[in-house]
Amino acid sequence: MRNILLEIEYDGSGFSGWQAQPGKRTVQGELTRALSLVCGAEVRLNGTSRTDAGVHAYGQAANFTGDFGIPADRIPLAVNNLTEDVKIVGARDVAEDFHARHDAAGKTYLYRISATKTPDIFMRKYRYQVTEELDADGMRMAADALIGTHDFSSFRSAGGSPDADPVKTLTGLTVRDFQGTDSRGEALTEYEIRVTGSAFLYNMVRIIAGTLVETGLGKRRPESMAETLAAKERRRAGSTAPAAGLWLEKVHFKDGAS
Amino acid sequence: MRNILLEIEYDGSGFSGWQAQPGKRTVQGELTRALSLVCGAEVRLNGTSRTDAGVHAYGQAANFTGDFGIPADRIPLAVNNLTEDVKIVGARDVAEDFHARHDAAGKTYLYRISATKTPDIFMRKYRYQVTEELDADGMRMAADALIGTHDFSSFRSAGGSPDADPVKTLTGLTVRDFQGTDSRGEALTEYEIRVTGSAFLYNMVRIIAGTLVETGLGKRRPESMAETLAAKERRRAGSTAPAAGLWLEKVHFKDGAS
Repeated sequence: MRNILLEIEYDGSGFSGWQAQPGKRTVQGELTRALSLVCGAEVRLNGTSRTDAGVHAYGQAANFTGDFGIPADRIPLAVNNLTEDVKIVGARDVAEDFHARHDAAGKTYLYRISATKTPDIFMRKYRYQVTEELDADGMRMAADALIGTHDFSSFRSAGGSPDADPVKTLTGLTVRDFQGTDSRGEALTEYEIRVTGSAFLYNMVRIIAGTLVETGLGKRRPESMAETLAAKERRRAGSTAPAAGLWLEKVHFKDGAS
Repeated sequence: MRNILLEIEYDGSGFSGWQAQPGKRTVQGELTRALSLVCGAEVRLNGTSRTDAGVHAYGQAANFTGDFGIPADRIPLAVNNLTEDVKIVGARDVAEDFHARHDAAGKTYLYRISATKTPDIFMRKYRYQVTEELDADGMRMAADALIGTHDFSSFRSAGGSPDADPVKTLTGLTVRDFQGTDSRGEALTEYEIRVTGSAFLYNMVRIIAGTLVETGLGKRRPESMAETLAAKERRRAGSTAPAAGLWLEKVHFKDGAS
């Protein structure tokens, strides 16, 4: 029995999220269809993260098992010929008991924001567009208060697993600002929030991003982030930033797990 | 009776082209719906160019007439609140007999290409992606042969008005190459073909772009463009480049026509 681990990129704008649902176009559904054709047997995909509708990925992970003859390195090209907005960027054989979700040690998410006086319609599915420049230094100061192991109840939406432990560990939370370009090639300021953690609560990254944007707009003091965290109440944090700005960038696995 | 001229930007990836068609989502249909709500009466839009499915615009033009109370400069914001992938970027009152198609003196189209070893799924609706760098100097040399007044039968698809005069005048055809970035912010070479002319045959810009790309890939000699033009046969030119790379950039009107 082989076990194959995939690294997957997708444009989430045309999908109702990762998870297969009857009657909806999902990444899991689209990939399962293409992989089953390529492997000549129905496959069952275990994805690491159930990304929401509109959320993108550069590095989603998923594994599937079966007795397939196709060499792992032939899978990407074969599948990519069948799909338009999902791309397999890596495929390799892993240990028989490896599981993309159970063996994940952590994930890195990227949240992208651009500051434009008027929204760029060509970027509407790929950026959170704000109409003023953000105070990136203030955002960095606020972000620092979230690094480490905390009860993140303030940054949790209803709708996820209600019994998930709200104590999570963020090992990295950075804010980068740089000159980018809009769809016409004109200069604008872009911001990238990059979050790495062992596990996340429902909508946690988007609520952190929304709260940091409110900080960058001057609606919150950078120093108040520690109080927001300590309150353990959802209403104390900022709004949930749009799905369009979010990418699952990378899944990290335990050493030797794959 | 007022006559209002609009300048319109749209992301063509979600539309079955400009022209209203029953049961299809079109730019004209979407804009007519929004304008009728904003103006409080059914409007009838005259667009300059019937762009095909997947073709974008930064500067489509359209006019409509009626007895509306709304000041022209209030129209963009009111309409843009109702639409997601169409944006009115300018609106003004013009002479009562002005017509966006009949009074157009010319149009400028922009065709965008990027060279990437592997296609970027996030740019698939906005660029013609080629896997090798193009010879931009060769493309410029070939492009020069098309400037001026010629019979463009070699650059005409079946499917347009069969009785359109194949003699057209191109006043500008430039090829620009520059360092751009892919969706991850990594450097790649981009190419912009910009064509200005009084009028165009069906698919003429996309066939010119396709033929120039084949020249840039070394599949055609730059010197052969004059022969391709002189042949007046569609099969002598290159393939029709994808709709995704094309923008209607600007409509030019006769002096004093509006």
